[in-house]
Amino acid sequence: MQRTDTVAAFRAALDAERVERRRVGLVPTMGALHGGHRSLIERAVAECGAVAVTVFVNPLQFQAPRDLGSYPSDPAADAALAEAAGARHLFAPHPGEMATDRMRTRVRVHEVSEGLEGAARPGHFEGVATIVAKLFAIAGPCRAYFGEKDHQQLAVVRQLVEDLSFPVEVVACPTVRAADGLALSSRNARLTPEERAAAPVLYRALRAGADRLSGGERDLAAVEAEIVAVVGAEPRARLDYAAVVAEGDGWRLHVAAWLGDNRLIDNLRVDP
Amino acid sequence: MQRTDTVAAFRAALDAERVERRRVGLVPTMGALHGGHRSLIERAVAECGAVAVTVFVNPLQFQAPRDLGSYPSDPAADAALAEAAGARHLFAPHPGEMATDRMRTRVRVHEVSEGLEGAARPGHFEGVATIVAKLFAIAGPCRAYFGEKDHQQLAVVRQLVEDLSFPVEVVACPTVRAADGLALSSRNARLTPEERAAAPVLYRALRAGADRLSGGERDLAAVEAEIVAVVGAEPRARLDYAAVVAEGDGWRLHVAAWLGDNRLIDNLRVDP
Repeated sequence: MQRTDTVAAFRAALDAERVERRRVGLVPTMGALHGGHRSLIERAVAECGAVAVTVFVNPLQFQAPRDLGSYPSDPAADAALAEAAGARHLFAPHPGEMATDRMRTRVRVHEVSEGLEGAARPGHFEGVATIVAKLFAIAGPCRAYFGEKDHQQLAVVRQLVEDLSFPVEVVACPTVRAADGLALSSRNARLTPEERAAAPVLYRALRAGADRLSGGERDLAAVEAEIVAVVGAEPRARLDYAAVVAEGDGWRLHVAAWLGDNRLIDNLRVDP
Repeated sequence: MQRTDTVAAFRAALDAERVERRRVGLVPTMGALHGGHRSLIERAVAECGAVAVTVFVNPLQFQAPRDLGSYPSDPAADAALAEAAGARHLFAPHPGEMATDRMRTRVRVHEVSEGLEGAARPGHFEGVATIVAKLFAIAGPCRAYFGEKDHQQLAVVRQLVEDLSFPVEVVACPTVRAADGLALSSRNARLTPEERAAAPVLYRALRAGADRLSGGERDLAAVEAEIVAVVGAEPRARLDYAAVVAEGDGWRLHVAAWLGDNRLIDNLRVDP
């Protein structure tokens, strides 16, 4: 696995792969890699000749300095996981290389950035879109892998690629869950044992909402109330929002909740 | 000269040039090509093996529908000029191909977009930056040629490239002027004969301001007043703004003025 820490070196490495006619697979991450990331990398390895993992904790997408400062980080473990999963490149820009302090440019994706996480975290998706656009401009033509766990982020990235005509094919990958249903997330590492034990309530709540839909309920407010009730029954959890959104011929259920100082999100597709 | 009208075909054409190891030179235009554009294309041809001219009247950078609707257009003449100047590619996207109606993404370059044209035309540079970012994402690695006549636009594009790490080298080319000093502009074609006769007042005013600086004047308000006075002495011109801005060890003088329904701009660098 080739490690690069400058934009120029990473770009040159991917250009060299394309010269060798290998398709580039890009897995943008903020590090603290877990089984969800591993599934993205493995999917990319299955589909692309040259997979690159990027590790950059993007300050533009954090509103709370404390959340940014406490974001988990383990570079050695990240490198080991990426290499074991088959990545050929690891781009971990050295401090200052991404120059976010000096950046005056912001990329905003209207409409899809609104509501849900966009409403709960003002400016979050502008920060995401800006840095994802930069990573795409650096990486060049590629397939880029994102998890469905951050479902609205996926929609923002798709719209960004479509609108700015980046030569990027966005691939959505299913959420990976722990045995108890908790969606894998780097933030899970910050939970206390008690919070971790309570955290599967998000998925339980989504499942309960899904059961209502499967049972024929079509009053979406009642489905939302079901999610609210399940989360409300867990004293260690504090609901941020629950939402049921029509998606094609089915629905997508969203939930966000606090466990102590950590805000977790999850979502679930329900077919009719 | 190869003509393309879809994003996919244009991208493929430039990829093929790069496979042949030709450097791509990009000259983004809104058509109605004149001698200023010709100088950009010729400079690009001198430096790059494969020069592509794009012709797209970007609706996002117009605030007044009337200005957009009356923007001059002459596709046959554009193609003839581009080919004669040595371009190998002409990308004129067919209506709808750039999908500006459906675009939800906007690229904003803070600070450099403010003041001068940014203040006079709210939203203008957001429209410019959004479409230039899209053209860069389509074109891929290249040198891109822009005229100094639109000096603030040049600064916006440079900042955009720096911030988002586009693999683009921005080349600034000197303003081309008519014999009487008028900076060449597609909008000049809309001037009546009387307005055209009066239009060199912008350059005369800049020259008068430059003379004051060369004569030792260091009160920039007095230099601005000189520009204002010269434009004011031309009854067919109506000043929009005059500004003198420190630029490194020298200055740049800017002027914008209306001649009838047409707003013209010009600028001049003055060394100490």
